[in-house]
Parts: sequence; structure tokens; C-alpha cells
Amino acid sequence: MHRKVTGLENLSLLFSPRSVAVIGASGKPGKIGNIILKNIIACGYQGRIFPINPKESEIEGYPTFPSITRVPEPVDVGVIAVPARTVLPVAEECGQAGVKHLIVISAGFKETGPEGLALEKELVAVARRYKMRVVGPNCVGIMDTNTPFNASFAAGFPKQGEIAFISQSGAMLVAILDWSLTSGLGFSKFISLGNKSDLNESDFIASAAADPATRVILCYIEDVSEGNRFLDVAGRAVKEKPIVVLKSGTSQAGAQAASSHTGALAGSDLAYEVAFERAGVIRVRSMSELFDLAFAFADQPVPKGDRLAIVTNSGGPGIVATDAAEQQGLSIARFGKSTLDALRAELPVEANIYNPVDVLGDGRADRYRFALSRVLEDENVDAVVVLVCPTAAAEPGETAGVIVEVAGRFPEKPVFGVYMGGEILEEGVRVLSEGGIPSYTFPEVAVKAMGGLAQYARTVKAEPAKPLPEYDVDQERVRAVFLAVKEDNRVVLLGSEGAAVVEAYGIPVAPTKLATRAEEAVAIAEEIGYPVVLKVASPKIIHKTDIGGVRMGLDSPGEVMANFWAVISNVQRSLPEVVPHGVDVQRMASKGTEVIIGMSRDVHFGPLIAFGLGGIYVNLLKDVSFRLAHGLSLREIEKMITETKAYTLLRGYRGEKPADMGALVDIIARVARLVVDFPQITEMDINPVFAYQSGAQALDVKITIS
Amino acid sequence: MHRKVTGLENLSLLFSPRSVAVIGASGKPGKIGNIILKNIIACGYQGRIFPINPKESEIEGYPTFPSITRVPEPVDVGVIAVPARTVLPVAEECGQAGVKHLIVISAGFKETGPEGLALEKELVAVARRYKMRVVGPNCVGIMDTNTPFNASFAAGFPKQGEIAFISQSGAMLVAILDWSLTSGLGFSKFISLGNKSDLNESDFIASAAADPATRVILCYIEDVSEGNRFLDVAGRAVKEKPIVVLKSGTSQAGAQAASSHTGALAGSDLAYEVAFERAGVIRVRSMSELFDLAFAFADQPVPKGDRLAIVTNSGGPGIVATDAAEQQGLSIARFGKSTLDALRAELPVEANIYNPVDVLGDGRADRYRFALSRVLEDENVDAVVVLVCPTAAAEPGETAGVIVEVAGRFPEKPVFGVYMGGEILEEGVRVLSEGGIPSYTFPEVAVKAMGGLAQYARTVKAEPAKPLPEYDVDQERVRAVFLAVKEDNRVVLLGSEGAAVVEAYGIPVAPTKLATRAEEAVAIAEEIGYPVVLKVASPKIIHKTDIGGVRMGLDSPGEVMANFWAVISNVQRSLPEVVPHGVDVQRMASKGTEVIIGMSRDVHFGPLIAFGLGGIYVNLLKDVSFRLAHGLSLREIEKMITETKAYTLLRGYRGEKPADMGALVDIIARVARLVVDFPQITEMDINPVFAYQSGAQALDVKITIS
Repeated sequence: MHRKVTGLENLSLLFSPRSVAVIGASGKPGKIGNIILKNIIACGYQGRIFPINPKESEIEGYPTFPSITRVPEPVDVGVIAVPARTVLPVAEECGQAGVKHLIVISAGFKETGPEGLALEKELVAVARRYKMRVVGPNCVGIMDTNTPFNASFAAGFPKQGEIAFISQSGAMLVAILDWSLTSGLGFSKFISLGNKSDLNESDFIASAAADPATRVILCYIEDVSEGNRFLDVAGRAVKEKPIVVLKSGTSQAGAQAASSHTGALAGSDLAYEVAFERAGVIRVRSMSELFDLAFAFADQPVPKGDRLAIVTNSGGPGIVATDAAEQQGLSIARFGKSTLDALRAELPVEANIYNPVDVLGDGRADRYRFALSRVLEDENVDAVVVLVCPTAAAEPGETAGVIVEVAGRFPEKPVFGVYMGGEILEEGVRVLSEGGIPSYTFPEVAVKAMGGLAQYARTVKAEPAKPLPEYDVDQERVRAVFLAVKEDNRVVLLGSEGAAVVEAYGIPVAPTKLATRAEEAVAIAEEIGYPVVLKVASPKIIHKTDIGGVRMGLDSPGEVMANFWAVISNVQRSLPEVVPHGVDVQRMASKGTEVIIGMSRDVHFGPLIAFGLGGIYVNLLKDVSFRLAHGLSLREIEKMITETKAYTLLRGYRGEKPADMGALVDIIARVARLVVDFPQITEMDINPVFAYQSGAQALDVKITIS
Repeated sequence: MHRKVTGLENLSLLFSPRSVAVIGASGKPGKIGNIILKNIIACGYQGRIFPINPKESEIEGYPTFPSITRVPEPVDVGVIAVPARTVLPVAEECGQAGVKHLIVISAGFKETGPEGLALEKELVAVARRYKMRVVGPNCVGIMDTNTPFNASFAAGFPKQGEIAFISQSGAMLVAILDWSLTSGLGFSKFISLGNKSDLNESDFIASAAADPATRVILCYIEDVSEGNRFLDVAGRAVKEKPIVVLKSGTSQAGAQAASSHTGALAGSDLAYEVAFERAGVIRVRSMSELFDLAFAFADQPVPKGDRLAIVTNSGGPGIVATDAAEQQGLSIARFGKSTLDALRAELPVEANIYNPVDVLGDGRADRYRFALSRVLEDENVDAVVVLVCPTAAAEPGETAGVIVEVAGRFPEKPVFGVYMGGEILEEGVRVLSEGGIPSYTFPEVAVKAMGGLAQYARTVKAEPAKPLPEYDVDQERVRAVFLAVKEDNRVVLLGSEGAAVVEAYGIPVAPTKLATRAEEAVAIAEEIGYPVVLKVASPKIIHKTDIGGVRMGLDSPGEVMANFWAVISNVQRSLPEVVPHGVDVQRMASKGTEVIIGMSRDVHFGPLIAFGLGGIYVNLLKDVSFRLAHGLSLREIEKMITETKAYTLLRGYRGEKPADMGALVDIIARVARLVVDFPQITEMDINPVFAYQSGAQALDVKITIS
């Protein structure tokens, strides 16, 4: 059902239709068709409204038509709330009537099984035919507070604001709507994705990115419909406004990721993780975090950096905030001399003038004004968290006014309020809220929100990644190897075949050839040069060393000859059912730092490249970082190397000389190119790659194709 | 200032005095001495109240005395709110008047510097002389809602409840008090620790543990005053009721722990971490978590296990809850057949009958009653989270009543409500609160609270740890080695000395002796047997291998002779300023799995034992687990081994035979005994220890003494 639509979608008629028809409108209170109609009317929608119901002539005071085809005017949006079995003819009529967009509320489609899925596909086919776009089916509907337009059956309509909330769960949307009415959070749009038969999160992210009334995009999703389109759309949208995503359904994937098999290290949740990072999307892990961040993004500017100052009237909460800042990876700002001098001169002698600044329990609003102003003036400060505890001297209301006023003079620096208490502080919290300062009850929550802002600041500042260089590669040779493997009815390549494939992509690899007879092994050894390694060649043998299938450091024809037979007979003894293809003869490489470079495929986002400590302890240590192969940049490759413990070794551990990072980056880049060029590669591991002071070399290449 | 008081403290007269004097009482509104007096009166305190002020004859309607010595009746508690410089004489008078406990509100003590510290010590000395106990100084005071008694200057008095809150931050206490008044959380006691000159967290934990009105103990602390007493008191208290601790000030310590030096792996926050685990204290990382857990512990029973069921009327939030359960390490309960049959028979066909049970968007209160009852009846379920989204059909109020009613029939199973929304659900939230069911806005918060309950359940169920066996050790020999090292003006032991020390404690160690001349090296080799290893002996050389200071596998007198000189000349070339003590001659051991067993000391909790992967990559991989040496049990040692990746190797990695765990446990136990017996050992590392299929052996022992 995925279409090839790119670009930032224009769905303005969907959110601001000139006219709307409710097909299945009803006069009976409590019926969905009644609730929707009433919602459209009640929200103050200014366009034309047409209830459609063959059995009624008027509903809620509006003339009612038996069919949309009988409506005498053009209709932009059709909201369909009829039983599933009649949705198709209704959609057909909408198409005939020239409707632009359908919002299909009706359930009974994909979510019910194969028959429903077939029905849903037919629905999309009808819509395609008439160039209509479809929201849903099985959705709650959509809302736009600026139009205003409420084409949903949810109870209530959100306060106007600048947050677009896109939800794959209808119940979640309804719950958040209800919660927002008490919490005071305002929204520009509410979108219920439903079954995502046509329009999905990518479409609505694109639309919200282009919407001047939206400053922040929040998403609750359970999956992404089109991986690469999501990366493209979200990656461009975040340059305009932050996207905060709660992706649920991580738990099973989490279990997969913990699996001890290298291929399975890249579980599907991991793919989402790297995809979100690539796109610059901020991923949160809980609903509370989603909305704590929303409060911050809705009102506050993007900070220049991550240097946080804390102003408090109490030591304890200041320490809690400091701890939280470190957990979030924020810097505790170091004030300049003039700031320190001013604070020292004006604050009581017991006050801490270093960060966190403590205005003391007897600090009133004026002391907050002074301290906050001086701290915000300091060029070493990017953002401030102001903590107010209800001490006897505290003036919470006045202090809130001061915070709003002073923050207003520094529009480029985010300011967060923490009002630690309840009743006594209520007025202050109200003043902050009206003044556009997000306020929280506990310090760590404000700091976490600042952590999100700082993360977004890094995304916005990052220079666009350059694509990988165009490498000179030999695709023909790779195709030939794969063809031979297929003809041999295999999917797993032999070591010599793997070596040939990576060599064709310019990856340095220890010369490796297959010998089927001892004499051939000797000839190969003579050709590639001593010393050599012999390894049994069989896709069925995973741990070759463990069964005596590997012999190293062979220096002469005699040794090669003798050990060829030793390898073969060891294998026959341990695994009598396996008939090896022969023995790989490899030029023995001098020992380097062992790393692994691997690849596994994700159903949504394609190949994932892995890098980490190599050798036999890969699965034990799980020191691996991942990136998407598609669109990989050299900068990302460098970053993925530095994220691992292997990097500590590579840059020169305990006095050793550093390894050649450029050579490793080059190999990773070429592997990425290879797996993108050849989608039939389903799994790939080069383990080990030896990294040297100068250069690097692949030793053992395992490739599985489909 | 630490006293030797153990046992569960009887502070009942402090919280329920028959009479109280406020020294520094004032008639002027806004003065601390006025606020305290008014608070005592306003809370409904039933005992006798004596304001003390030489300049007044009556305050707030109470006859006022010029000095406590003039009060004609015995006084149990003296609340002191006079300037710091007059606290000492006032305390002296209190002693003369037979006061039992002092609550010193006055600031101006330790927190102001050395002079204040001296004053504080004198205050404690006075109190000791008269057998008075002291709260504070520099504190907000204490409250007891059952007495009732409010000897504090905080605004407001908490709702009665079963939570004791102990806070090292006065402002935090005041803030939480204010917040509790809106959130509805009830408390038995509020305790402001202040400077902890005398009574500290251990005293109040002991007191709260013995208090029948307290079910849960919450602490905010910045440090622990008496490490071992805390372990003892908290360890016993948790058997009665849960202790939840927010310990702040972790950030600097966190940085220490990340240091690459083995000794510094045990930063101070790490010591708190292992201490809290030892005591069975639940550590939270944020204030929100502290109180989310408090809500759960205040009302809910301790579950039998960690098998969680989820009942929801919406899929999305159910998935979020499931993810959270996995993050918390909870099990998703698998229902028994009869439960599944019943759910299948009664719920609509589209409903998910597996966990999470989905009663669907049109599920009303009766469907919740049925599903919740069946799920709670299932013996495979230990606790239930009930999610209610405001769907059109939802009956939040009625459903809340149902939850309270059904949960009441299963008093041994915790039930949590998640009411996802605001206004619409308010009645439901109120019903839950009145019915003693904790309710939350977001699913992950409820699940996290259950995580805390399940953790506590494990603590309560755990069998008491058995002390380590009494080993036959040779303390005299260790003392002799240390004496010799001291006489040589060193603090770092040579390898041969370290070997002698651990051997004296029955730890198998490769025979190692110091040779100062080549001939001596040969003689030692002849004695201990070939092959041998030579290692330069000098406490100043850390990485001996890197400078050619180690020679392995020497098989003959000639090799030993030649390599003795090679080692010496290598060292002279690399480190001309170092004069080695000689060369250690060690019997070469056959290679085993390399692990490290180490120790570092914490200022609060004494020696910490470390165990992990050994060899040269210790600092790189940081695969180390820690335990307190004091009170270490064999079970803890086994657990600390299994926590590491080293364990994966030890139990037999890639087909190898498992190592002798018993031998490793024995070595760790003996090291713990050694470092407890000899507090002068400041640091110790055995790296590597070779673990074999049978037995284990220390190779390189580094010991630093003070």
C-alpha cells in the first residue's frame, strides 16, 4: 500500500476545508455520526456542513442529503462513519462528487484480519482512482484549532497552541486531549492515524513541518510505514521544528537485541533507534517525558549550547538539579569573572555565587531578579533553571513575575521554572504559564526538558552530511560470485568467495583461495607466499577453530600438505555428516587490533552497518555501534567508531601506536556501498578486520545472500 | 561526633512529648520563634506548652517564662530558636532543667565554617553531659501527625498518613509538605535532619521502623553520617517496612567512577550504590520517582512476585505499559487456562484475552469488573495495572468503584490505576484515591511503582545471609610483611611480598620469591621448579611488560641467569632513575581464564571488593562488579560473579569447560577477610587470577598499605 510520494505534503484542504460532509451523520445523541457532526459545529467551524443520511432530512439544524452525490456544492472533506461493509460504495460516491480527502472513522478493516485488509486495499484503490487522500480507517479523526475544525468523535476540543500531536493510538489521542484540558497545554493539530491505509506519519510530519501554526511535532507511533520516506521527511522537517517521538512496542525487540547471535544484535528496535538518530528526531521513552518536552519546546527558544545555570533558594534541590544535568549530558555553566564579581558584591556572604547560584532561603523576588539577570547576561550561559522552594521569605508570585520579565529580555535563552510545592505556589505557576515559561514541580524534570532542547540544538547546528565518495568498484565480479553460489544451491559464501566479493569493492583482504586437493593448496601457498593459514571451507561449520579446522603459520610445502589432510580428517572426525568444499588457503597476516564490521537488514530501514571489538569475544562483549547504510556519511562512520570501546584500543592503548582510522573508515564506507548495491546480501560479517598503524585488512568474510 | 549507639532508637518522647518549651518564642508575627509556637498550638498538640522569653510574660495566650530553669514542670522537648551564639547557654539550661530532647532550629553552626563546627561540637558535648539528644542544628524541625506535634517553622501541617519523610534539606521538606497538601499524600512524620550533629538518618530510620503508625520510610539525603550503622539499622528496618532513598550529589562521584584507574573504579557514589543494595534500600534517581513509589507503598501490599497483568480499554497504552514492564525487569504474567477460557467466553471476540487484556474501547465498568476479577483470581498474577482511557463508552467513575471493590477482595495483590486524561476522569481518580488505590496519569509511572514493590518483595523474601566461614589464616605473617615494608619506607608491596600476604590467608598463589642477584634467581628457580617467569620487582613500575621487565617460560638455569640481566638492563635503559629491588622469580602457571579480584576503600562504608574480567583490558572493558567487604556473604559473592561478563566466560564459553566457581568464591571471601582484618590495606588488586577447571591461582598481587 505504500506510494511513491515525496516532498512536504500539502494537506491544507484536509485541515481547512471549505466544506465538509459527514456521511453517516445521525440525529441520535451518543451515535458516532452525531458526535462528529456536533463536534464540527461546536468547534466554530466556518465552512459549509453537509450531513449525509438517507433517512433524515435535517440533523442538528442542517439540511441533510441522502447521498453525497446529491449535495449541490463541491465538498472538500468527507468524514465517513458508516459500517465497514458500506464504506466502499460511499467512498466511490465521494470520488464521483469530487471530494478531495476522506476521513474514514469506521472500523472493521485491517485490524480485523485478512478480509478487512482486503477491504482496506480496495478502499485505497477507490481513493487513488479519484485522487483522494485517506485518513484512517479505524481512526478517531483530526482536529485543527486554528481553522477551527474538529472532525472527530473525541469529547472536547484542545486549547489553541503550537503543538501538532500525531497518534497511532486513538485512545491515547483522546486521553491526551482530555489531559491537556486540565494541564493547559495548547495544540495546533490532533491527528489520529488509525490504520494508516494511505496517509501515514510521514505525510502528517511533512504537513506539520510546513504549517506556520505548528512549532513542535509530537508523535506516538507503534511502527513506521515507510522507513526511507520517514528518514527523508523527518530529516528535513527537524531543520524547521523539533520532532519528539514516543515509539512503543520496544520490548520484544529489546529481547531480540539481547540475543547472542551477531546477526541478531541488530534487532528492530535498534533500527528505529539509529533511524531516529539519523533523522535528528528526539526519542523519548515515556509519555510523561513526551509532554514534559512538549511544554519546553512549545514556549522556549532553541538554546545556543548546553551550558546550564541553576538559580535556587535552597541547596538540596540545587544538588538534585546538578545531578540531573550531568545525567543529561549537559554542562554546568562556569560563570565569567564579571558575573562572579557582581554576584559576590550583591548577594549575602553565605550565598553560593558559583553555579548553582543560591539566593538563600530568605531570598525574595528582588534577589531572584538580580541573580537571574546577571546569570542570563553571562555569555557562558545558554539556559537557566530557576528553582523556587516555598521558604518563609519566598515570594513565589512576585518571583514568577520577575522570571517572566527577565527571561523576556533574553529571548534567545531558554528559562525553566521549578516551583517545588503545591498550594502556596499556585499563583506563581499561573504567572509563569501565562508568561510562556514552562514550569515543573521537580528539578530533574526541568533539566530533562533542557536536555531535549540541547539535543535539538545540536541537530539544528549540525552541518549537512556529505554523501560517501564514489568508489571505483567491480559490480560484475560480485554478481559473478553470487551467481556461482546460487548455481551451487548455496546461500552462504565460502571464505574465498567472500574475500573475492570484498576485494571487488576495494577492501583490502588477506589473499584467500580455495583448494580442493592438498597439491592445489601447496600451489596456492607458493603463489600467495608463506606463511599461510589453512581453514576448512564449509558454510555449515560456524566455529572452525573449535573442531581443529584451522591451522596457522605454515611455512613450507610439506607443512601445507600435512596440515591439509589434518584439517580434513579433524572435520570428518568431529562432523562426519559435513562434506567440506575444500580448504581455504590464506596468506597469514601479521596481527593487528581485531575489529568486526558487519551488516544485518531491517525490514523498515534496510541494511544496518555494525562496528566494534572483533575476535572471538564479539558476542561476549557486545561492544558494537550501528548506523543505517543508506545515506551513511564519513562523519557518521567516524562517530560510530568513537562510540565503541574498540576505539580506546585503536587510538593507542597503554602506549601502543594508534591504528589507521582512515583505513577503517574506508572499509566501513565500502561495506555500506556494497550492501546498498546488493540487496540480496542478507547478512555479512567481516571478523576480524586487523587494524594496523598503517592500513587495515579483512581476514574472514562471511556473507549470506538470498 | 559519631557515637556508638546501635539498636532501634526510642525517640518516642521526641515525637510525642508530654510538654514542650520554645526557647526564643516570640509574639511578633513572622518571627521564627512565633511561627514555631503557633505551629505547635495550631496542630492540636495536647501536651503542655511553655514559651521562653525573658522579655515577655505571655505569648499567644501562654504564660511565658524568662528561662527554662524557671518552668515549674518537667519539659520533654526544648525547641531552640535563639541566635547561634546563645544556643550553648540555653542548651546548658535545658540540661539543668531535665529536658530530654533538643530541637535546635538556629543556624550558624557547621554550615558556616570551622568556628561554627567548633560551636556545634560544644553543643553536642553539652547535650551528652545531660543525656539529651539533639535534632539539628540548622533544621526546620519535626512533625508528627499522630501525636499531633508540629515543632517546625514550616507553613502547613501534613495530612495524616503512614509515610515518614526524613530530609537532609529543609527547603525540600517544606516544598514536599506544600506539594503533599495538593497531591493528597499523607504522612506520619516529617523530619528535618539539619546538620545531623547528633541524631542522623540512622536514628530516625530506626525510630520510624519501630513506629506502628509508619508503613513507608522516605529519605532525601546528601550523605550518610555513619556508614556501618546505617547498613545495620536500614538492613534490619527493611525487614519491617520499605525504605526509599533519594541520595543526591552523585554527579562528581559519577565522574570519579568513570576514571580509568582500577582503584578509582570504586567512586563514592558506587559505594552508596552497593551499600543501598546490601541494606535492601530502594534507591530512586529523582524526586518524582520518590513520590510515585511512596503512593504505591503507602496503600498497596507487598506482592508475592513480579508477574504483572495489565487490563486496558485501549491497545496503545497497553503496549506502553508492556514496554515499561520489561524495562523494569517485571514479568508479563502468563494466564492459566481457566482464566483464558473465561476471558474468551465472556469478552467480545475482538478483545485480546492474553496479557495485556483489552476490554476494548466500548468496555464499561462491568466488563472491567469481570476481566479484573478473573485476572486477579489467576495464581500466575502477582499484581495488576488497570488502564482507563476516556473512550466514549468508558465509565471512569463506576470503573474506579469496581477497581476498589475487586481489589478489596484480593488484599495480597497490589492494584494500580492509570487514568489517562484529565477532567473527564477526575471523579474516577477521586474514587481510587479514597479507596486506597494509587492512580497515575501515565502507564509507565504505575509500572515503575510496581517495579519498586517487586524489588522490595525480593528483599523481604531473601533469606538472611550467612556470614563467611571462619578461615584458618596467619595474621602474624601478614603483620611481619607489613612491618618489613614499613621499615623499608615503602607503602607499595613487592610482588613477592604480596604473594606472601595472600598465601598467609590461604589464597593459592603462584610461588614467587625475590632475587637480588642472578645466582639467587637460579637458586629460587631450582627450588620452585621450572618453567619460571622473571618480573622486575619495583613498586615504582606499573606496566612492567611494556618496558621489557618481564620474561616468561624460562626453562633452565642458563636462561634464568641471562634473562635476569636482560630484565635489569631493560629497566635501566627505560627508567634510569628507578633502582629495582630485584627480580621476582615466579613459577610459571598454566594459562587459565583471567579475572581480577580487587579492593578499594570508601570513606563511609570501608573496603569494597571488586570482581571482573582480568588481564590488560580491565580498564578498557570495565566489566567489574562490587560488594562491601564488611558482612559479605557467600551468596553475595556468587551473585557478584554472575553479574559480570567474566561469568559468561567462566561458565564455559564456546564449548569450553566451566571454571571452578567454588575456588573463585573462596579467594574472594578470603580477600574480603584480609582487607577487613587489616584496615591498613588501602588498595589491593590481584590481576590476573587464573581460573581453572579445577582450582584457581593468584598470579600478580598488588597491595598498598598506609
